[in-house]
Amino acid sequence: MREKRTKIQEVLAREPIGEELTLMGWVRTKRASKNVAFIALNDGSTINNIQVVADVEQFGEEVLKKVTTGASIAATGKLVASQGAGQSCELIAESIEVFGEADPEKYPLQPKKHSLEFLREIAHLRLRTNTFSAIMRVRHSMAFAVHQFFNDKGFFYINTPIITSSDAEGAGEAFKVTNFELDAIPRNEEGGVDFKKDFFEKEANLTVSGQLEGELAAMALAEIYTFGPTFRAENSNTTRHLAEFWMIEPEMAFYDLKDNMDLAEEMLKYLVKYALDNCADDLAFLEKRAEEEDKNKPQTERAEMTLTERLKFVLENDFERVTYTEAIEILKRSKPNQKKKFQYLIEEWGADLQSEHERFLVEKHFKKPVILYNYPRDIKAFYMRQNDDGKTVGAMDILFPGIGEIIGGSQREERMDKLTERMKAMGIPVEEMSWYMDTRRFGSVPHSGYGLGFERMIQFVTGMGNIRDVIPFPRTPGNCEF
Amino acid sequence: MREKRTKIQEVLAREPIGEELTLMGWVRTKRASKNVAFIALNDGSTINNIQVVADVEQFGEEVLKKVTTGASIAATGKLVASQGAGQSCELIAESIEVFGEADPEKYPLQPKKHSLEFLREIAHLRLRTNTFSAIMRVRHSMAFAVHQFFNDKGFFYINTPIITSSDAEGAGEAFKVTNFELDAIPRNEEGGVDFKKDFFEKEANLTVSGQLEGELAAMALAEIYTFGPTFRAENSNTTRHLAEFWMIEPEMAFYDLKDNMDLAEEMLKYLVKYALDNCADDLAFLEKRAEEEDKNKPQTERAEMTLTERLKFVLENDFERVTYTEAIEILKRSKPNQKKKFQYLIEEWGADLQSEHERFLVEKHFKKPVILYNYPRDIKAFYMRQNDDGKTVGAMDILFPGIGEIIGGSQREERMDKLTERMKAMGIPVEEMSWYMDTRRFGSVPHSGYGLGFERMIQFVTGMGNIRDVIPFPRTPGNCEF
Repeated sequence: MREKRTKIQEVLAREPIGEELTLMGWVRTKRASKNVAFIALNDGSTINNIQVVADVEQFGEEVLKKVTTGASIAATGKLVASQGAGQSCELIAESIEVFGEADPEKYPLQPKKHSLEFLREIAHLRLRTNTFSAIMRVRHSMAFAVHQFFNDKGFFYINTPIITSSDAEGAGEAFKVTNFELDAIPRNEEGGVDFKKDFFEKEANLTVSGQLEGELAAMALAEIYTFGPTFRAENSNTTRHLAEFWMIEPEMAFYDLKDNMDLAEEMLKYLVKYALDNCADDLAFLEKRAEEEDKNKPQTERAEMTLTERLKFVLENDFERVTYTEAIEILKRSKPNQKKKFQYLIEEWGADLQSEHERFLVEKHFKKPVILYNYPRDIKAFYMRQNDDGKTVGAMDILFPGIGEIIGGSQREERMDKLTERMKAMGIPVEEMSWYMDTRRFGSVPHSGYGLGFERMIQFVTGMGNIRDVIPFPRTPGNCEF
Repeated sequence: MREKRTKIQEVLAREPIGEELTLMGWVRTKRASKNVAFIALNDGSTINNIQVVADVEQFGEEVLKKVTTGASIAATGKLVASQGAGQSCELIAESIEVFGEADPEKYPLQPKKHSLEFLREIAHLRLRTNTFSAIMRVRHSMAFAVHQFFNDKGFFYINTPIITSSDAEGAGEAFKVTNFELDAIPRNEEGGVDFKKDFFEKEANLTVSGQLEGELAAMALAEIYTFGPTFRAENSNTTRHLAEFWMIEPEMAFYDLKDNMDLAEEMLKYLVKYALDNCADDLAFLEKRAEEEDKNKPQTERAEMTLTERLKFVLENDFERVTYTEAIEILKRSKPNQKKKFQYLIEEWGADLQSEHERFLVEKHFKKPVILYNYPRDIKAFYMRQNDDGKTVGAMDILFPGIGEIIGGSQREERMDKLTERMKAMGIPVEEMSWYMDTRRFGSVPHSGYGLGFERMIQFVTGMGNIRDVIPFPRTPGNCEF
């Protein structure tokens, strides 16, 4: 620790040829000839390794045999222009300190291709691979860009509660939180669970969305956003579902549905542009990775666009804004519907759209990202603003290539009578929600908001097919390791 | 919604005298003379209201009687220089639209002083008060500053898991997470809880700290930070404890204890400077508020420094770095110890320090923020690096005026044998933690990190005495409303 570490990212960007530097990191590979060892060193600051050149005679076998894949070292020496192909500079080592070895017989991450399934099993080590370090750097950049975007616009970040007694949206899919010993649940006189004895003195759940509390804040601060974990105890073992995932939920007073769409489109383009501007090396690596993967797939399953093309597809197109009713007409008349190629055929107005329909609209019909709006009231949530036609609500979903819905939002029903009526019709306990109703009772305003599943966005930007690979420690049925 | 809203914050900053504007917000107060009504309008973008002037004859009683405290309106008109005291400009209303009324008989936030206790009961509305909107804007700024600080330094934001099967640090204070119906817990053949039937197929908790998983990420990406919710099922009804709170936990490979202290001091100063630079109006309001509160306290309990003085105390002093051993000597010889004024007298080396001791060191002895380091091993966690003296560990706590400890951190024990030995001595199940041990088994490096309780920091910056008032929806024993 006596020497000051210089980051490899900085060295490769600045190329301070001739300078004396100390690099610290983990060995990716070592190639040794009789006289010289070439060590590819990575410190997590960039996808790119730097080559450290060590004279075999000078350092001796004793030291160099510890320098294996996964070992951590500090290398001090002079940076020189590189003679070899594939790198512009390299470090000629004058001293090497081995911090920690990595027994090649035991260390699982040897330099060969590992399956994503295998790497999920060792999620505590997979961040040391090129693929996962690239994903996590992109994830960081996207999180920062979210905060930057909203801060620049004067939105306020609000931490809505994680533990909540509100389950209006949970639909029975909320995890329960308790301080009881599960083998000694206290009972009340009627034989039910005596929640009065629990920590919160009532039933408590993990939040499924911060929206309702976000609305409370928007009725005071006008423009707010949340960015936090949300939870679903949904027994779905798919590539699109996690039990624990991060959501971004802006909520804005004085916004109608069009304002809501404008903001969502602007935000998505900002995030994509930020990735292109700030994550070029990682995206190039991930694009190449996706292309390699595609080679092992049958022709029909291969991506039609490269990663960069998909990102530019979002950035460079105006999103097509189409009502649900128009979309149903398009889908009814579409070839895959006529020829019964859709798994779910579209027969009448009111049908819920599936991913196959959303992707058809985006990829085949409009060839642009699509915003569908004014959905049938009966397939949407209670808080969405009722349109004058008596059958639709001011909902909007944004559809992307490859993944379908990426954002869902709506203008909220701000009229007390309409909201109460709808809640009663849907069996939602109005009395228990009196705190929510107070926002309509006192100083109610037209307002709107939407939700972006952060991991869906990271999947889109990284091109990763399985949502378990874009969060450090995925939680799914049967899995909460680490 | 036809008119474009201009934010009051922008109007007051820019003062576009003569422009036609539409303002939207909530009425704070209305004063009416025979001919003119003066409406103080706030839209959450700033602590400051803007005055809207409405001609009584023009708008009529019917409209103006709806314009009461808490009602929401849009007012369109021309901005003019103000004749009245206390404001530089005001809007002469040409049209007023009332979005939502707030019946003065029912709306709880009438323009008078409300106690913080009362406001906690209506946390869903308290964000509409000056005090809580100011706190939440400061909280937003501090959250953004955290991300900005670490992003600028090339740290990566990592989302460590919220639901976890790891409880090494929980000490029995972790909330349990389950998908079981609590009145029908399945039993296994031995009569215990059949966790195999639960969602995660094993016992699951809410995280008490992201540190251990943060270390995994630092062993790959070198410099990372977490910023997320953490939980304690601790039955503490104090002004310093929440069951759900947000933590910032940076973790850095290749950092020793001194590097750790340097980073923490730099971060705290950055945050304080950011608040002073970006939250001047809100801080001025909060400072005045604290002074008013102090007037009702006995002389001895009043703050010795104003809010601004406390912030500058942090910004302008080099933090004093003192070993625990030196601090004990100072405390033993101190007047309050000699005269038995401390509630807990300091008698010998090894004693745990209380808030009264920490504040004495900061406020009376050094008159600077203090970093205490090299604590007795036996009062600190298993993962802290053991010093060569055989009795202390490389821990460090940062102490602030008014609140005592604000940051706790350490260099981590990177030596496999030392760590294993310590875990065994403390009864921590090494086998269950094999994923954690892998970081020491493979490519271990010296590393350090610390934790900052975000709400403690917000308390310090806003001067609020009760931690329940610096988070939108506090969770405490018996309370998980909203």
